[in-house]
Amino acid sequence: MSTRIAVMGGAGFGGGEIVRLLLSHPHVSVVAATSRRLAGKPLHRAHPNLRGCTDLRFCTPDDVPQVDVLVLALPHGESSRRWDTLKDLAPRIIDMSADFRLDDPEAYAEHYGTHPRPEVLPTFLYALPELNREALRDASHVATGGCNATVSILALLPLFEAGVVDRTATVLDLKVGSSEGGAVANEGSHHPLRSGVVRPYRPTGHRHAVEIEAALGRSGPARVHMSVTAVDMVRGASLLAHAFPAQPVEVRDLWSIYRDRYRNEPFIRLVAERSGVFRFPEPKILSGTNYCDIGFEVDPSGERIVVAAAIDNLMRGAAGQAVQALNLMMGWDERAGLDFAGLHPI
Amino acid sequence: MSTRIAVMGGAGFGGGEIVRLLLSHPHVSVVAATSRRLAGKPLHRAHPNLRGCTDLRFCTPDDVPQVDVLVLALPHGESSRRWDTLKDLAPRIIDMSADFRLDDPEAYAEHYGTHPRPEVLPTFLYALPELNREALRDASHVATGGCNATVSILALLPLFEAGVVDRTATVLDLKVGSSEGGAVANEGSHHPLRSGVVRPYRPTGHRHAVEIEAALGRSGPARVHMSVTAVDMVRGASLLAHAFPAQPVEVRDLWSIYRDRYRNEPFIRLVAERSGVFRFPEPKILSGTNYCDIGFEVDPSGERIVVAAAIDNLMRGAAGQAVQALNLMMGWDERAGLDFAGLHPI
Amino acid sequence: MSTRIAVMGGAGFGGGEIVRLLLSHPHVSVVAATSRRLAGKPLHRAHPNLRGCTDLRFCTPDDVPQVDVLVLALPHGESSRRWDTLKDLAPRIIDMSADFRLDDPEAYAEHYGTHPRPEVLPTFLYALPELNREALRDASHVATGGCNATVSILALLPLFEAGVVDRTATVLDLKVGSSEGGAVANEGSHHPLRSGVVRPYRPTGHRHAVEIEAALGRSGPARVHMSVTAVDMVRGASLLAHAFPAQPVEVRDLWSIYRDRYRNEPFIRLVAERSGVFRFPEPKILSGTNYCDIGFEVDPSGERIVVAAAIDNLMRGAAGQAVQALNLMMGWDERAGLDFAGLHPI
Amino acid sequence: MSTRIAVMGGAGFGGGEIVRLLLSHPHVSVVAATSRRLAGKPLHRAHPNLRGCTDLRFCTPDDVPQVDVLVLALPHGESSRRWDTLKDLAPRIIDMSADFRLDDPEAYAEHYGTHPRPEVLPTFLYALPELNREALRDASHVATGGCNATVSILALLPLFEAGVVDRTATVLDLKVGSSEGGAVANEGSHHPLRSGVVRPYRPTGHRHAVEIEAALGRSGPARVHMSVTAVDMVRGASLLAHAFPAQPVEVRDLWSIYRDRYRNEPFIRLVAERSGVFRFPEPKILSGTNYCDIGFEVDPSGERIVVAAAIDNLMRGAAGQAVQALNLMMGWDERAGLDFAGLHPI
Repeated sequence: MSTRIAVMGGAGFGGGEIVRLLLSHPHVSVVAATSRRLAGKPLHRAHPNLRGCTDLRFCTPDDVPQVDVLVLALPHGESSRRWDTLKDLAPRIIDMSADFRLDDPEAYAEHYGTHPRPEVLPTFLYALPELNREALRDASHVATGGCNATVSILALLPLFEAGVVDRTATVLDLKVGSSEGGAVANEGSHHPLRSGVVRPYRPTGHRHAVEIEAALGRSGPARVHMSVTAVDMVRGASLLAHAFPAQPVEVRDLWSIYRDRYRNEPFIRLVAERSGVFRFPEPKILSGTNYCDIGFEVDPSGERIVVAAAIDNLMRGAAGQAVQALNLMMGWDERAGLDFAGLHPI
Repeated sequence: MSTRIAVMGGAGFGGGEIVRLLLSHPHVSVVAATSRRLAGKPLHRAHPNLRGCTDLRFCTPDDVPQVDVLVLALPHGESSRRWDTLKDLAPRIIDMSADFRLDDPEAYAEHYGTHPRPEVLPTFLYALPELNREALRDASHVATGGCNATVSILALLPLFEAGVVDRTATVLDLKVGSSEGGAVANEGSHHPLRSGVVRPYRPTGHRHAVEIEAALGRSGPARVHMSVTAVDMVRGASLLAHAFPAQPVEVRDLWSIYRDRYRNEPFIRLVAERSGVFRFPEPKILSGTNYCDIGFEVDPSGERIVVAAAIDNLMRGAAGQAVQALNLMMGWDERAGLDFAGLHPI
Repeated sequence: MSTRIAVMGGAGFGGGEIVRLLLSHPHVSVVAATSRRLAGKPLHRAHPNLRGCTDLRFCTPDDVPQVDVLVLALPHGESSRRWDTLKDLAPRIIDMSADFRLDDPEAYAEHYGTHPRPEVLPTFLYALPELNREALRDASHVATGGCNATVSILALLPLFEAGVVDRTATVLDLKVGSSEGGAVANEGSHHPLRSGVVRPYRPTGHRHAVEIEAALGRSGPARVHMSVTAVDMVRGASLLAHAFPAQPVEVRDLWSIYRDRYRNEPFIRLVAERSGVFRFPEPKILSGTNYCDIGFEVDPSGERIVVAAAIDNLMRGAAGQAVQALNLMMGWDERAGLDFAGLHPI
Repeated sequence: MSTRIAVMGGAGFGGGEIVRLLLSHPHVSVVAATSRRLAGKPLHRAHPNLRGCTDLRFCTPDDVPQVDVLVLALPHGESSRRWDTLKDLAPRIIDMSADFRLDDPEAYAEHYGTHPRPEVLPTFLYALPELNREALRDASHVATGGCNATVSILALLPLFEAGVVDRTATVLDLKVGSSEGGAVANEGSHHPLRSGVVRPYRPTGHRHAVEIEAALGRSGPARVHMSVTAVDMVRGASLLAHAFPAQPVEVRDLWSIYRDRYRNEPFIRLVAERSGVFRFPEPKILSGTNYCDIGFEVDPSGERIVVAAAIDNLMRGAAGQAVQALNLMMGWDERAGLDFAGLHPI
């Protein structure tokens, strides 16, 4: 019998993407997707790709029935604000917003404002299978990480765990697509202004840094220097991490470290070729997939390690990793519903 | 037991796409994909999306074993030139090139040069399930149509069969992506010259016109005036067909005609909304899908019918429809291996 | 002494472009540019390219002084609504909106609603130098044409005047960039939804058709069938006109007709090469220029003439032709301030 | 009387751009532009923007007459290889290639191979007006800097001269357009593979680093950690420099430092707004201009300074700065021929 799932916030980009994944998931039945604005309308009104794929229509939050799993794809702040009405709708809850990602109310307050329900924070598990797979199997409430945080953590985790880099000096330079800004238009997302840009969008002060430092900090002190630049693509987040060796290191050492750490990971691929066009990770071929591709190079002088990593921000950075977490929580094959290989050329 | 399939010409865009589809097809096993240039190399050397999805490596044409189905994804002219060595490799052959699409050697000669094996032409069936589904079930040798021909035929078939338009006056104005030019770089495909273009690529004399007229000509005389313009996208073909009514016609008549004709078609969707952003077909959300989306509008004066249609040229225009034909030839569910819904936003 | 000019509506795309042109015009001094929203702010707040080029700040409409020439770059409907306060600001007025383009109040009403000041319509001259250069020299009030109308008229004028085409059967298939939608963001212009599209934006019923028919109608009856599709570029309008010969015609005849008609035109270039990448007009190299590039081809069967034409919609389709008209009205060199050659690659 | 100039290597992107600039330069006459491949053909065969702007045709190198100034826009390695035949063609020579940028033959050898004419290296001046304006006024032989080097040096010069940053720890993360790869197509520049990419093109080992360190090294030791990523644009280079303060520093200090250093520079603009869309430098509005836009921000923790800078790589990074150098060498207004403001939107 199918597991019954409802998606709150079904008209946004993350919501549409997880509905799409769940509609073709072998063990799941989507029973509701909410949108106050589009209540009563077919899903393809917001997600034209779903035309003909489902008869489901958007409903209001009040119409959501009791389900097995509740997925929250609401704007930041909504999950915690509406927690009292949400918490009883399902025994398992997956929140894709930032509301329950941090353990520390003070860290939350610094980046998002005072948390309305700090006592709920400890009941949520930050979901990143490569970091805490076993804990996820027992979790009932999980918060999936931010897109930029996810790609950064996955890129750096092996280096920090192996202790081969200066733990406080890493520069994270991210290039991101326009879908990271969400489904609501604004002046900066107007096509004539957004097309073709390389726009320093958050040179300093990005709030995902705290998530990254929390994850990398499990193995010791961790400090990252993060900048995010908007480039001309819709999906995708691409990272260059500039890390500084704590001891002499060669590329073959990196191959060992990354292979050992990610040997059995179904959604990590190592990409560091010596020739050809596709030498390092690129986000565009990852559209629709749950992969995080990771590559690396060492400066000829040995002074710097550059780690390149890429994800589809709506998949591995949001809906895909939510499904990956769901699969673990439910005891299913971790890859269920996530078998799309991605397109080339695209 | 899986049906064993080999793909000749596996390093091109069409070849890569059909290998991708077949790798995840429920009834199929891919036993070989050829590329002389990349023989011995893993498939991801040409198709980076396939990294980690298969251990298969490219082989030379000489290494292709006897199989159940042979798919030819070779450059135009190669299938017919190498026919003697190809024909005995499998009892069923699907050719994605132009070599066996036309029945008439003279029509072929006009657009492609003298056909080296005209006697083979009648043994191939032009594969378009919406046109000749039943014949496909019995076919052993099929030729899939050209991308621009496919979208044009599907857009106009109902109007021509219903006899509501002037059969010799239709203008076909197509906008196509860069992947239509194939995987080999040329001066015009150099990114600085190709990015952002609206380039009249073939204002007159496109060789797909003869395919279109052959298909539409089944119900009477048919003449089309075709132009193709290159625009800034990678995948996709988009058509505006400007047709002239042979009798007064309103939009509701068109709805009846198209609904009646395509009622049970799994890969045709009608898209003609009165409001919203996605009122008419758009190619970008079709990337990776086998759909042909079709919409229409009538000039306020009633003087013209405009039909809009869109496909992914590498899917519905090539590899997707090859799999659809395969499914029919093998007696499988027509949708097997073609269930990807497409991405939004993208 | 410089001619003093004020621009009403200086924060929009057309307004910004004409301010830019006038700032470097040899005979002009820009004394005011209005924006209620940005009053008091430097021009670069709306037009980042103008940073460092001028100390001018936006002012409110009430602050506009008496000037020699008033340029109206207001949203459609504003010029006529505010006519009483505008008309006395300058002896010469150039309106870039649709308000005074049509002579016939009924034609206006059909496409834009009832005209508030129909008696003013006959006092404005529709400005298209290639059509009515001499009249422009004496004009005090001119309305510049719509972008899509301008490229269409220039492409077809020689054929209609020469009487070589069926005057009621021409199909106009236009591909346009996102700047045609203006500077205000909307759902459809949101980058994730607008990037990479081929979106049938106005398959029928485009209101520029009436302008085109008025201009072509000077030499006899004229009927056009117009469709506009949005593609992925910011600037530019590209036309394929599909015309049907009224008599047998060859390409060399077209060369004669177009050369004769446009021999001395400084802003018309004929582009119809037999080889190379840049065989026909393309909008992207026209960015920032006032050119209209025009090419043509005849179907091998002789049944159809295809005319390709391209402009920068904000220049030749708006601000550039406004300056060209200004130059004629003032008796200056028609090319003054319009000498930018355009960029390649871009 | 006009200064007579010849351009060697006129068919490349840099060559086409400098020919365009010189054609509209007030004090210059272009007497020759060479291309062996296109000898005898009009310039618009390679540079479609120049159609109608000049009657000049490409000639062979042998046809170049004695001139006042010779501009070398040849592929790297050609200027030095052909030095004996080039050196006598003009008393003043501007080389846009890498051949004469470095003083040190060993540094050259490390990145480009053994220099064929090391004795010529000291006779060339590295041209960067903001660095060595006075020396340029007396120079007869100058080498313009690399595009990525130019934007990096201009971004960091004030910080290094002011001594406020750790001189060996700066990370340079550049995002560049496809025109940086030149006019010749290759597999990686094929539009289907290049469109939409964020491709780590040179994560380590970029050869412009040595130029940057030489320029910054004038005020003390200098070490940079440079990475270059290809993104989806044609023109433009965008830099985020991550620098680490040697002493506590605030944004207002940076304003002082940059304003003091660049107060009278005609082609440097400081862009660091608190609000609006265009808060920091963006390359796209710089297309066709000679500006280098520079902005900055300090991490809330004070641990890092981020400097953002952008140029048009073909202008400020090549042809524009060559003209700027020419103007200084000839004693003309430094801005002559470089007054284009740039386009918005674009």
